[in-house]
Order: sequence, then C-alpha cells, then structure tokens
Amino acid sequence: MSDLDSGSDSEEPIFEIEVASPVNIALVKYWGKRDVSLILPFNDSISLTLDENYLGTRTVVRYSTEFIDDEICLNGKDIEVSERLQSVINELRRLARKQAIKKKLPAAQLMKLSRTKFQIRTKNLMPTAAGLASSASGLASIAYGIAQALQLTDIDISQIARIGSGSACRSISGGLVQWYSGEEESGSDSRAEQIYTSDHWPELCFLVLVVSQKKKKIGSTAGMQKSLETSSMMNTRNQIVDERIKEIKWAFSVKNFESLAEVTMRDSNMLHAICQDTYPPIFYLNETSHALINFVTQFNQVSKEITLAYTFDAGPNCFLLMERKSIPLVTSLIKTCFLADENIRNGSSEEVTVPEKFSELQKTFIDYKGDVEYAIQTSIGSGSKVVVPPFQV
Amino acid sequence: MSDLDSGSDSEEPIFEIEVASPVNIALVKYWGKRDVSLILPFNDSISLTLDENYLGTRTVVRYSTEFIDDEICLNGKDIEVSERLQSVINELRRLARKQAIKKKLPAAQLMKLSRTKFQIRTKNLMPTAAGLASSASGLASIAYGIAQALQLTDIDISQIARIGSGSACRSISGGLVQWYSGEEESGSDSRAEQIYTSDHWPELCFLVLVVSQKKKKIGSTAGMQKSLETSSMMNTRNQIVDERIKEIKWAFSVKNFESLAEVTMRDSNMLHAICQDTYPPIFYLNETSHALINFVTQFNQVSKEITLAYTFDAGPNCFLLMERKSIPLVTSLIKTCFLADENIRNGSSEEVTVPEKFSELQKTFIDYKGDVEYAIQTSIGSGSKVVVPPFQV
Repeated sequence: MSDLDSGSDSEEPIFEIEVASPVNIALVKYWGKRDVSLILPFNDSISLTLDENYLGTRTVVRYSTEFIDDEICLNGKDIEVSERLQSVINELRRLARKQAIKKKLPAAQLMKLSRTKFQIRTKNLMPTAAGLASSASGLASIAYGIAQALQLTDIDISQIARIGSGSACRSISGGLVQWYSGEEESGSDSRAEQIYTSDHWPELCFLVLVVSQKKKKIGSTAGMQKSLETSSMMNTRNQIVDERIKEIKWAFSVKNFESLAEVTMRDSNMLHAICQDTYPPIFYLNETSHALINFVTQFNQVSKEITLAYTFDAGPNCFLLMERKSIPLVTSLIKTCFLADENIRNGSSEEVTVPEKFSELQKTFIDYKGDVEYAIQTSIGSGSKVVVPPFQV
Repeated sequence: MSDLDSGSDSEEPIFEIEVASPVNIALVKYWGKRDVSLILPFNDSISLTLDENYLGTRTVVRYSTEFIDDEICLNGKDIEVSERLQSVINELRRLARKQAIKKKLPAAQLMKLSRTKFQIRTKNLMPTAAGLASSASGLASIAYGIAQALQLTDIDISQIARIGSGSACRSISGGLVQWYSGEEESGSDSRAEQIYTSDHWPELCFLVLVVSQKKKKIGSTAGMQKSLETSSMMNTRNQIVDERIKEIKWAFSVKNFESLAEVTMRDSNMLHAICQDTYPPIFYLNETSHALINFVTQFNQVSKEITLAYTFDAGPNCFLLMERKSIPLVTSLIKTCFLADENIRNGSSEEVTVPEKFSELQKTFIDYKGDVEYAIQTSIGSGSKVVVPPFQV
C-alpha cells in the first residue's frame, strides 16, 4: 500500500523522507555530449563512488498533494526550480502514474500522484565553493529521494538523475560504476551500472586536496561542447576511451593498482589536454595542480612502483587515489610540502617516519607549502541510500 | 681568392668575422623528431624570424690553421664544445674541402682547410635565463659564421644549423620560413626555406612578454620525444600540421591577420595540449601564461575582431603577435594589467587613451600586475647576416 493511499480529500497528509547521495570521481572522464538536452554523453565513463558521509549531499523531500508547487532549498537558501530539475521531477511523476496504471491502482490514486508536489531541502556536506563537484551528488539525491518517496521500484534511477546533471547518474550506485553513452536517440540505453561493489577492493581510498585560488578565477565562456566543436583531439579520445575502461575493469578484477593508476592519470591528463586544445582554451589546472602532478610522478619514481595516482575534474582540486597502506606516508609528505591546514579531515593520525629517500622530494616541493587549503580522506562508498524512511509529518 | 690563400707555412694568419643571427618564433611548431641524431623533425614547421638586433645572437669567429682546437666562449664563459657543435664544425670543414676539390684548388690549400680551427665567441643579446630560446639563434650564428669564414657559397646553411639545434635552421633566413621535415633518411631534404621576405608584411610585429617565475621550476625529465612515445595526440597533430601551414601561407599571401592569428593560437594550444597529454605530463605554461591567453581571447572579443594572437614555445613566456597599429593599445593594457617594469624595451612611447569598452578587461586582469617582468617589442627581421666582414687580425 502506498504512503499516498491514506487520508481524505479534505485534509491531505504530508510525508517526508531523507536520503543521502555521494560524490563520484571519474577515472575515465565524461567530456562532451552527443545530445545536449537529454545529456547523452559522447563517450562512456567509469567512476568510483565516494563515502556519502564526507563528500555527498543530504536531501530531505517533503511531499503532499496539498503543496501547490515544487520547491527547492539549497544549503538553506530558497532557489528557483531549474528547467532541468523540473524535468527530473516531472519525469518521476510520470513514471509513478505509469507504475500505478500498471498496478491497476484506482483513478483517484492516479490523480493524487499527478498532483503530488515536492518541497526539497538539499544540503552539501562538503564545504561550498571549494569546487568539489556537488551537482552530481545533489541531483542524484533529489532523483533518488523522489523516486523513493513515490515508491518507484521498477525504474532505473540513474537515467532520471542523468537528466538533471549528467554525472549524477553515477552517484546512484556504489563502488565502480560505468555510465554507458548508449546509442539510442531517446537515451534509453544511456544509464549507469555498478561494475564492482565498494567492498570488492576496500583498500582503495582517496585523499582530496582542495587547492587554494589566490587570484580571482577568470571565467571561461567555453565548456565541454566547445571542445567537441573545436578540438580535433576529441575523436582521438573517443577511440581510446573504450580501451581504457576495459583496462580499468581488468585492473579491478585482479586488483592491480599500477594499471588502475596509470589509466586514471593518463585519462585525467588527456581531459585537460583537450581543454587546452579547445579554442579558445579552457584552463582548470593551476600551478599548484601542476606541482601536485609532478609530486605524484616523483613519488612513484622514488617508490620504484606506482602506489599513487592523481585525477582532476573541471577544477584545480586534486583527487589522490591510493591503497590504504600508502596513506600514512602520502599524508605526511602532503602535510610537509603542500598543506596549509595541518589536519587531514576524516584522516587517521597515524604517524610515520619519512624514509630518507623521500627527502629530496620534500625539498623540491616545499615552495608549495600552504597552496593546498585542506585535505579530506575518504573511502569508497556504497551509493545513494535512505537515511530516514518515509514518515507522515 | 680565399682569405686562407695567403701566408706561408711558417706563420699562419688569423682571421676574424662577426655575424648576427636572430631568434625565430614558430607559428606552427616543431615537436618531436623522426630521427634524433640527425634532428629530423616529425612534422614541418613555419616561423617568423625576428629582428636580430633585439632577440638574437652575435658571434665572432676567429679562424686559423695555427689554432690547435676548436673552442667556444658563450656569453663570456669558456665552455666545452658539445658533440652537436663539433658535428656542425666538422661538417662545415668537410664541405669546404669538397668545394675546394670541386674548384680544383691545390693540395696545400685543401690541407689548410682541413686543419683550420675555430675560436668562437658567441653572445646572446636577450637577457640570459629569461627562457627566450637562444639555442636557435646561437647555433644559427655559429653555422652561418663558420660558413662565411670558409666562403662556402653553394651549400644550404640551414641544413648544417639544423644538426646543431633543430629550429636553428629557421634562423638563417628572414621573414616567413618553412622547415621541411623531408622524407630522406639522410635528412638531405630536411631544410628551411624562406617563403616570404620580411618586407612582404612589414606591419607585423611581436611584443615578447617575459613571465616571472616565482617558484622554482620543477625539472621535467620528459621532452618532445616522450610526447611521441606516449601521447596518442601526436598522430592527430601530424595530420593537421600541413593544413595549418597552408593556411599560414595563404594568410600571408593576402595579409589576412585573422587567419594568421587563429592558426597560430590553435597550434600553440595544441602543442601545450600534447605536453599535457604526455605521460608523465610536461607543463611549460604557468598561471600568468593562462591569464595572458585569456587576456588575448577577451581583447579580441571586445575588439569584435581578431587583432591580437599569442604563441608560446617550451616556456611560460608569451609572444604576442599583432600589426603595428595595435601596438599602442595593447602595450597600454599590458602595462596596466601585467607589467612590473613600466618600459617596453625597444618600444615606442606613443600614448593612447584606452577606450571605455576595455575597462572591464583591465579590471579582470589587474590581479596579474607584476607577473610579467618586462616586455620587448620587435619587428620581423631579414635573417642571419655578416656584421663585420672577414679581416686578418
């Protein structure tokens, strides 16, 4: 029986549910759309879902047929319901009616579903304005929350989240997630799928480095579609991406960190290369980002094996990927060379003696002390979930 | 009659000649070698030769059969004769003997040529350590100087300069110069040729911006060969370069600055994109370079036409290309937003009132004030030349 089943026409009940969705970090990136309005990507991508408790969004959805409009409050501030968000909500209402028809629910019930409105309160757990992509976890949590509220059981929520914000589709499931570009014009085959659960390779973790921006960011009018239009490298990339995703999956199957790391770094490099080749060019990385890339390269050289990888999204912040055993040494070096804030958020306080062979590295990067504002340690998460099940307010 | 013709065996004369070679700036860049030891490039490139009086090298060559060894003094400091430089000198001696045989000169004369040694004093006119490629003008001047000293008339000096330092071959001629990659294994068809003389489009000029480096440069072990080995974008580039060179030549033929500028900027972008896509990546541009690129983009947007172009070699310094009429406005804006040193070296003091429509631009980039150490204005030059003809010391 649906939660919306109860009550008379005279006084409509109000329900509430709370959900959480995590940020995801692409190892092979999404860049460029084959269909802009449906957000169908130019190529497949593959990502790791983070622990939703540290880098994620909490969303409370109140719903009732009594509400007049859909409303949204983001980080405590009422904002306009964007066209994209409205599409997400409308699509979910449409699917709810469809499901009700399929289940042969009475007409009055259908009417109610179509009249249900949502008051959404969404809050990002990560510091705002840090440039840590919150649209993925935000839209994922809204799509997930409403789908739960409407008790939509037979749908692929990733496809609805995708309409809200492309990479949001990868924040529904946990672990390693692939987003298929698909081939259908309707986008019916462009969905995200879990490839490995988060407990397949639990040693994996991220250290997220929030890079300070000393000068005001000069807005770029260009974006990923500009790359498609102007960079001749997009086609080269398209030929390579499938191979890279295969390599990532293979690396996961045998837990080969070196392969995982190399593909991840190469794909991050390529994304930013394409941005640089876009006309006019787009710059997301700054000198601190460059220094962090050089740091990782030299760290692996000194280590004589690849135990650390970087990846960068559309911003200067660095996502360091490693296995848990590397955390003490890496955090110690990052603290010495880059960090302004001495504490690793959510990090262990385990101390380590830095081996002598890393002393040259420390000397090389000490110039960058203070250029990373703070660091957040996080593990791989299991995806979107219900925090507080539906209840009548 | 050769200068080496005179004198007896008992007391050998010493001769001296002074030459000058300019720096050249590639509009379509050279990146990657098809043959490393012969310096045969992976693709054709095309460049503008600068005025040798401001960005160039002066070289004095003393030569005599009395000297025991070839010697070189660079910017007042005696240095080792490198293997590459020795190859250049040996090749020129070999060609001189070949020419002497062809001209049927007596055996004693041949002996002298083969025994002639060179004392080279070379001095870069641009500030040292500014990262303004001096190896091109340096090696060009040495090859040119020795060729003049040996009165080599029937040879292509560009091919000899190429052996010393690839892009040096483009500093022999003035104006617009194309370096052909060639197809021969011997490199016999890899030479530089003047496409247009410097007086074909005399309005063209450069403003060279020397960008300050606040943090110590972190050496990259990688270089252009690493790109060939690791970047999948090198092949894409190879397919595009010939088309770009054609466009540059067409733009020159009709003096279409917009086309010249767009191809130049796109090719600079692509070179640095390839560096970013190299594994591990190579970074030459810093945040000031990025800001200068954004400045040019916005300058052209406000101007509603493309009157300014940027290009960057393997370093953060910016080469701004424009027609002379744009100089007053561009220098005024660059002074306000970027320059530490208020004077433009070799620049005119012509004042200009900045139109109101550029005020937003000034506000946007004022954060970068001081990030360009100094600027040098220069026109297009006519190539390597003899400054002081040979005389007996």
